[in-house]
Amino acid sequence: MREVRNRQMEEKLSFVSDYMEGAHPAILERLLETNLLKTEGYGFDVFSESARNKIRAACQSPEADVFFLAGGTQTNAVMIDSILRPYQGVIASESGHISMHEAGAIEYGGHKVLALPHTAGKISADGIEKCISQYRNDANHEHMVMPGMVYLSQPTEYGTLYSLDELKRISGVCRNYQIALYVDGARLAYALACRENDVTLPDLAALCDAFYIGGTKCGALYGEAVVIPRHDYIPHLFTMIKQHGALLAKGRIAGIQFDTLFTDGLYGKIGVPAIAAADAIRKALREKGYPTTYGSPTNQIFVVLDKEKAAALSEKVELGFWENADDSHVIMRIATSWATQMEDVDRLTAVL
Amino acid sequence: MREVRNRQMEEKLSFVSDYMEGAHPAILERLLETNLLKTEGYGFDVFSESARNKIRAACQSPEADVFFLAGGTQTNAVMIDSILRPYQGVIASESGHISMHEAGAIEYGGHKVLALPHTAGKISADGIEKCISQYRNDANHEHMVMPGMVYLSQPTEYGTLYSLDELKRISGVCRNYQIALYVDGARLAYALACRENDVTLPDLAALCDAFYIGGTKCGALYGEAVVIPRHDYIPHLFTMIKQHGALLAKGRIAGIQFDTLFTDGLYGKIGVPAIAAADAIRKALREKGYPTTYGSPTNQIFVVLDKEKAAALSEKVELGFWENADDSHVIMRIATSWATQMEDVDRLTAVL
Amino acid sequence: MREVRNRQMEEKLSFVSDYMEGAHPAILERLLETNLLKTEGYGFDVFSESARNKIRAACQSPEADVFFLAGGTQTNAVMIDSILRPYQGVIASESGHISMHEAGAIEYGGHKVLALPHTAGKISADGIEKCISQYRNDANHEHMVMPGMVYLSQPTEYGTLYSLDELKRISGVCRNYQIALYVDGARLAYALACRENDVTLPDLAALCDAFYIGGTKCGALYGEAVVIPRHDYIPHLFTMIKQHGALLAKGRIAGIQFDTLFTDGLYGKIGVPAIAAADAIRKALREKGYPTTYGSPTNQIFVVLDKEKAAALSEKVELGFWENADDSHVIMRIATSWATQMEDVDRLTAVL
Amino acid sequence: MREVRNRQMEEKLSFVSDYMEGAHPAILERLLETNLLKTEGYGFDVFSESARNKIRAACQSPEADVFFLAGGTQTNAVMIDSILRPYQGVIASESGHISMHEAGAIEYGGHKVLALPHTAGKISADGIEKCISQYRNDANHEHMVMPGMVYLSQPTEYGTLYSLDELKRISGVCRNYQIALYVDGARLAYALACRENDVTLPDLAALCDAFYIGGTKCGALYGEAVVIPRHDYIPHLFTMIKQHGALLAKGRIAGIQFDTLFTDGLYGKIGVPAIAAADAIRKALREKGYPTTYGSPTNQIFVVLDKEKAAALSEKVELGFWENADDSHVIMRIATSWATQMEDVDRLTAVL
Repeated sequence: MREVRNRQMEEKLSFVSDYMEGAHPAILERLLETNLLKTEGYGFDVFSESARNKIRAACQSPEADVFFLAGGTQTNAVMIDSILRPYQGVIASESGHISMHEAGAIEYGGHKVLALPHTAGKISADGIEKCISQYRNDANHEHMVMPGMVYLSQPTEYGTLYSLDELKRISGVCRNYQIALYVDGARLAYALACRENDVTLPDLAALCDAFYIGGTKCGALYGEAVVIPRHDYIPHLFTMIKQHGALLAKGRIAGIQFDTLFTDGLYGKIGVPAIAAADAIRKALREKGYPTTYGSPTNQIFVVLDKEKAAALSEKVELGFWENADDSHVIMRIATSWATQMEDVDRLTAVL
Repeated sequence: MREVRNRQMEEKLSFVSDYMEGAHPAILERLLETNLLKTEGYGFDVFSESARNKIRAACQSPEADVFFLAGGTQTNAVMIDSILRPYQGVIASESGHISMHEAGAIEYGGHKVLALPHTAGKISADGIEKCISQYRNDANHEHMVMPGMVYLSQPTEYGTLYSLDELKRISGVCRNYQIALYVDGARLAYALACRENDVTLPDLAALCDAFYIGGTKCGALYGEAVVIPRHDYIPHLFTMIKQHGALLAKGRIAGIQFDTLFTDGLYGKIGVPAIAAADAIRKALREKGYPTTYGSPTNQIFVVLDKEKAAALSEKVELGFWENADDSHVIMRIATSWATQMEDVDRLTAVL
Repeated sequence: MREVRNRQMEEKLSFVSDYMEGAHPAILERLLETNLLKTEGYGFDVFSESARNKIRAACQSPEADVFFLAGGTQTNAVMIDSILRPYQGVIASESGHISMHEAGAIEYGGHKVLALPHTAGKISADGIEKCISQYRNDANHEHMVMPGMVYLSQPTEYGTLYSLDELKRISGVCRNYQIALYVDGARLAYALACRENDVTLPDLAALCDAFYIGGTKCGALYGEAVVIPRHDYIPHLFTMIKQHGALLAKGRIAGIQFDTLFTDGLYGKIGVPAIAAADAIRKALREKGYPTTYGSPTNQIFVVLDKEKAAALSEKVELGFWENADDSHVIMRIATSWATQMEDVDRLTAVL
Repeated sequence: MREVRNRQMEEKLSFVSDYMEGAHPAILERLLETNLLKTEGYGFDVFSESARNKIRAACQSPEADVFFLAGGTQTNAVMIDSILRPYQGVIASESGHISMHEAGAIEYGGHKVLALPHTAGKISADGIEKCISQYRNDANHEHMVMPGMVYLSQPTEYGTLYSLDELKRISGVCRNYQIALYVDGARLAYALACRENDVTLPDLAALCDAFYIGGTKCGALYGEAVVIPRHDYIPHLFTMIKQHGALLAKGRIAGIQFDTLFTDGLYGKIGVPAIAAADAIRKALREKGYPTTYGSPTNQIFVVLDKEKAAALSEKVELGFWENADDSHVIMRIATSWATQMEDVDRLTAVL
């Protein structure tokens, strides 16, 4: 186990991730207000119902089933296991969260991740179609794992975005081959707040069979909201959620959080400070001649540093190690969040 | 899906369960105070570390591994899957939560629940030993599921308690046959607050291979603290938690909650109002001639009502349906919690 | 691991089981004749196709899908895993092979066995209906395992038979509640050869969603033939068989065996010597005053012996230990097979 | 489902695979001789014990545990599931049977296949070490699947061979990092019969934690013999075999086959005609100017044909389609077996 770190005591700058703070103040306030009211458990409470209705409205998807789960890996595992049949696997980018950093949770549920090569975290309609048609044309395909679903992240793990056009083409391939399209929106608020983004919640509802709206990294204490546009597309999902240990007795706590995030359009705005901060950092990096990579327009920035510079910087600010670029350079991740303060951005800019 | 219920709007009395309210005010206060501090994720933060140390101290188990998970079914599945080998199953009461109400989560992880008959929710050292020795003596035991663990709930699903003597005898059987003992403490605070209880946290740490201290039903927004007295008894448990989708990115939220629950002995006291309320209700039931069953001394009361009376009562107070006693009688559950108000107890007593 | 036994060298009588010999001579002859012909693998050969057609004809089920697998536990696991959805379990007798003696293979595939009490190995339409309706009426049934299938053995593990009327009633319950009915026919030839039996192969095809015709215990070297009356009732079953490691490359070996067993009605006759032998043994036991139990009319006889007698007998003939009847009596199983010789029956009768 | 093919009726030449015939005549003879002897089930018979002892001797591995299973995918799944812990995956070539053609059987058992790029079907000690050390050096490795085993095929799916030196280096990496080495020997007899091969059975026993000696493709009706050099390296493997549905009641049938294959060194010789036939075909291809690829020295030949030639040839001889080389060329597989007749080789040579 890694050493426990006490960042705030050291008063050291940190841009390591977007889940370092608690929750948006409006959420805490609402939890306080409602704390001693009695409600039903397991999501059958008025707050959860209100949140579901607001999410349906925001997605222009009035028939959608909406469920609240605790975290991203859990949500991915529940949805993939519930949608796929045993003989099917899920197509994903080699860099996808389910391919790399979920400790084999998808395989633990019995399904192969059919990993495709990527460009800055993204896979393409063509690459997906090639994978499916290779399977179908293989004389031995009955001995192989059938692609049953496409998994995308929006934004991707590299901070990049699928355009509406790209998403439509991928959705078209999925519908043509009758396989499911599922989008992991762990950081969706940072896409929605981004100038370059042209994919809205109603677009996701129109183009996907299921997707989730991230809470944990977007201002909630925890929680992800799964949206399934077609009602009862996954029969008995409630029981499969329970079976995965993903059903929360005090379901209202997630309900209250999402009800708050979808009141007065908060979810659409909560990423704005993160993007503003990231843009300022990108500008500073550009001005100071630091190359960035992957072209991410969202709240994650990937900067290429020579190793000495990286070591020197690490004395003053904590960044996330991403990967070695070559023998003498590393790629470091700078992540902003809904809670990032401009004064911290200024401190970062000063030490760069 | 069941109808959404808005109890608080109706202002109707409810004793349906012990997870109807939010969190103990001290927890919310602490979440507010710490909200914008930045910390590491996944439990590597100072609050989680502080909570772990306080729990180790309270359990007199300085080497214990402590992990925070989100809910009870999840915790049971993670622990059982992580401790058992594929050829092993878990001995439990037929009435145990894992036997009945976890939607097959244990079987989903590949393990058979070896269900034993129970007395008011409890199984005995003798029953466990008989089960193990039958397996060992069966000429075909290599074709059968090997008992690899005993699962107990303290308090049980019927609100009853294992005495220290009973627990010692069960622990003795487990150690004699070298199988694990695991205790589900979803409602452990209500045992600790109960006069009849003689099993302490240090006793659990001394007698079990793993147990969990319930948060969700005992004053937290969510969360259960797993205690594994022997360090590294389960190698790579962190990864298996992740693989089960049970690792929370903002691990500190559970950490802060348990840190609060284990500050100034709060966890030991938080159940006291629940037991006081339950005792008052038990007294009222006795005085009014309502029979109770199972003999639960904790925060759950099981009252036998004729069906007309039950229907009449349901107009005024919401209780939990437990089971039909016979053709004309039902057993209803009355649950109190850390948040139960004495004025609600008085209102209940008035309508009985 | 148990000691290796060399029965034939000792020339000791043995009635331990019905899988102690090789295969019916007609099978070996056919394997010899066809040995060097070249055919496709995986069951796409002419022998397998011929066997499928003969089985369809024998079952009066011309559209049936027929697959050949290697053994009973494998067949049960493949079929149960392929028919059930993750949230479903299988209703079976507590004494059912899947409940007791398959080392948790069903749970390993993720499904709970919902075990019902039995009478001489049989469960009833009423018991099944009660189980299903209890589930449906339980307010918490979304937290429970849904019954999705009924598993029966014909003959049962106690050698008893479901009558056609009993099977019709069970099938009626299953169809009424839209759950699958699956019959394990590991010893089906011994039912078909039995005077008391009134359930034919066409009856099974008409009343079940799937069943298997046992080969291993009924004259084959190995192999079970799964019959699924409705074509494509289980889409992609071929791939799920492969996924379970149950697809045999040289599929024709099972095909040739079942082609032989279904040529000239061999399967309908192969159990006749076993029943004749068992009837002779039952008569001898009756005449000598040994009580039998369970009332099995098939090739398994359960005799109650006092322990001294059992010990004495064991010097001269090997029987199968079944269970202790009481402190001083045991129940021993006497199994005959298609290969049992009448002279061995006479030797047994002589030593009784 | 594919069309059923009746090759032998068409009298068409076929070199599609090495599992198109029945069994070596000596096996059938031995099955006939022993057919009506009575033996214990589940492998506790004298023939299985004799086979185990002969295999131990041939492997110079007197303490080895030896088990007989029915097929390759089953054997791989049982062994991988039994050796790995839930948080571990298996390193294999992207072209490995478990990666491609087992319908996700390994993932169905909960484990990720960590696929490495290959050269003509082989992976290298360096590639394996890099994979392991990348995992160990990754700051997030606790969120990733731990490599727990290396899977190799000998010969590979491309007919190529690991040299003794290569195998020693791979074994050295595995032992250095304390992960298991497992070799799939589905076609091992064709390696052993091959001039280029320098890896013996004792070498495999010395260098691997487990391997299997293929029967199905090497002269048996079915069956694979797992060898585990260290006794009890996998506790309770018998039960896990049962749990996987892989335990054969008439275990002796596999036992008799392997006893025959390991009598008078038959297994070491049975591949000789296949290699002689393959060498003759390779010579003919060379002389006629057909390029081959991958450099396989064993019983599989991969010939590059332009599509017209391939179509013309397919009128006269059936070969296996392997993959498209480019737009106008295909790679076809020619497989010989222990049963290949030289006159068929001559017929093939004539039509080339």
